[in-house]
Amino acid sequence: MQVLLANRPHGWVQESDFKIVETELPQVQDGEVLVKNLYLSLDPYMRNRMNDRKSYAAKTELGDTMPGGTVGEVAQSQNPQFNVGDIVLGSFGWQLYGISDGKGLRVLPHLSENVPVSMYLGALGMPGITAWIGLISIGQPRAGETVVVSAASGAVGSVVGQLAKARGCRAVGIAGGKAKCDYVVNELGFDACVDYKAGHLAEDLAAAAPNGIDIYFENVGGEILDTVLTQLNAFARIPLCGFISQYNATHPYGLRNFGALLTNRVKLQGFIVSEHFELLPQAMQELSQLFAAGQLKYHETVAEGLENAPAAFIGMLKGENFGKQLVKLA
Amino acid sequence: MQVLLANRPHGWVQESDFKIVETELPQVQDGEVLVKNLYLSLDPYMRNRMNDRKSYAAKTELGDTMPGGTVGEVAQSQNPQFNVGDIVLGSFGWQLYGISDGKGLRVLPHLSENVPVSMYLGALGMPGITAWIGLISIGQPRAGETVVVSAASGAVGSVVGQLAKARGCRAVGIAGGKAKCDYVVNELGFDACVDYKAGHLAEDLAAAAPNGIDIYFENVGGEILDTVLTQLNAFARIPLCGFISQYNATHPYGLRNFGALLTNRVKLQGFIVSEHFELLPQAMQELSQLFAAGQLKYHETVAEGLENAPAAFIGMLKGENFGKQLVKLA
Repeated sequence: MQVLLANRPHGWVQESDFKIVETELPQVQDGEVLVKNLYLSLDPYMRNRMNDRKSYAAKTELGDTMPGGTVGEVAQSQNPQFNVGDIVLGSFGWQLYGISDGKGLRVLPHLSENVPVSMYLGALGMPGITAWIGLISIGQPRAGETVVVSAASGAVGSVVGQLAKARGCRAVGIAGGKAKCDYVVNELGFDACVDYKAGHLAEDLAAAAPNGIDIYFENVGGEILDTVLTQLNAFARIPLCGFISQYNATHPYGLRNFGALLTNRVKLQGFIVSEHFELLPQAMQELSQLFAAGQLKYHETVAEGLENAPAAFIGMLKGENFGKQLVKLA
Repeated sequence: MQVLLANRPHGWVQESDFKIVETELPQVQDGEVLVKNLYLSLDPYMRNRMNDRKSYAAKTELGDTMPGGTVGEVAQSQNPQFNVGDIVLGSFGWQLYGISDGKGLRVLPHLSENVPVSMYLGALGMPGITAWIGLISIGQPRAGETVVVSAASGAVGSVVGQLAKARGCRAVGIAGGKAKCDYVVNELGFDACVDYKAGHLAEDLAAAAPNGIDIYFENVGGEILDTVLTQLNAFARIPLCGFISQYNATHPYGLRNFGALLTNRVKLQGFIVSEHFELLPQAMQELSQLFAAGQLKYHETVAEGLENAPAAFIGMLKGENFGKQLVKLA
């Protein structure tokens, strides 16, 4: 079973933009492996791949399998580097099985019972590394500074705040709804979390970050960004990671407070994790240590079955998920 | 004679926002010098000082002398570091005479006949150094790249393009009107200049920068910035120097294409020259060498007499000046 891109959405994604097909398993050729996927990661960047527009990654063509990171188990191997039963991290996209010559496939280390394989799609995977690159390498946090992160209960945001705490910063989240905010503070250990749906973001943010904002890790864009811009400190840094509020917008939000970037001499940098893989070992070391010390908590929302991936994806774009959104495939 | 801030403007500055007063010369005390100002520099940043709003510099209080850089001649000295007749660079603001204990006052080197003292308020002064810091230190230009600068015929922009050429880049200006654009190309030696008033900026810019934009040196903000954002290359840099289009706006422009900063992994940094003075010797060396080699051309618009400073300032904010705007005081 595969999920293909059937239509390019205009505005919000619809289930009808996807097509689910049953396909025969291909024959494994010399040098190849067949992987049975266990988990599929759903991530906001996939929304951009559905567009017919220039971005940093190639768009997905109509009729192609939707892209995505996966954890799976080697089911057949004609490649000496892989054994049947190996658990591998890959990018097989929205399908139950994937075939590969082994390039870009990483055998995961022997895992303790305490580390579910799905973590390698979350806090110890691409989202966790994204958080590290943006906060540590671009944001350059110093102890005592205030770090604000939007989509704070999400796969990336939740790691950003915990890394900020570990580095001695004040961690302030922005999330949608009381339940997510409670989770961010009570479970993840952020110092504060502001519910942007409560309708008085500027006042609530000023109360949560009374000394102003030194680093703003941006996942959402739009009106939230515009509000944050008014509360930046001099020499603030903004790692620009995502704009989920804008991905389904037919009319982009007009940002009014851009001038604050000059007034406060702000450094802002857009980045994507795959262009900073030279930092992967450093990032994984810190994340693994934090996890081992019990300081890297996470939450997953798991949809059951590939056929439910489209609905789960749409829900994630609307913020209905809680933490990392996964699809359990087997 | 002094020009004081009489009212805080709402929107466009009016002549009635200033008050011209005649004052007695103060007595020179021990350790002080009295300077007779020769030239006053008029610069866009002064507009912000007139506001009652947080910015990087202290606002000017109502009734205070308008701030500004000056070149003058020491008229009386009770400070052994200064001799009568010394030509000094200072920040005496909008007044004919200034008194100082010598701090922040710089005696200019003996000048050849070919270097008018006013240059130390322009290409060899704060605007030139601003251009250098933004383009060289923040923009990090590489030979073969395309550098675009707005307000290209202005005191800062004209130096940016000439520095870019000297570093082997393609220099593209954006300016208002055919006369300014002709000057930018024919006199300053830019490769191209786009007249934003012609009404098809996007098309003209694409033609002038056919390989996309690697560095955008920003002086104006607003709609011009929004258009430039759609033509950035991957890993572009944006030194953010000014937003002159917005200084008199009562409703700030809503920037729609901000997302391009993420898509293209752009680095953007707001800066003010006075926070980078450690680079002053390096900047002055390159600017002086360029000037000596005849590669640093400039143009001045000189208003005669301090009483005409308000009108000249308002004209500059509207883009009526041509190159560096000065007021000749004596």
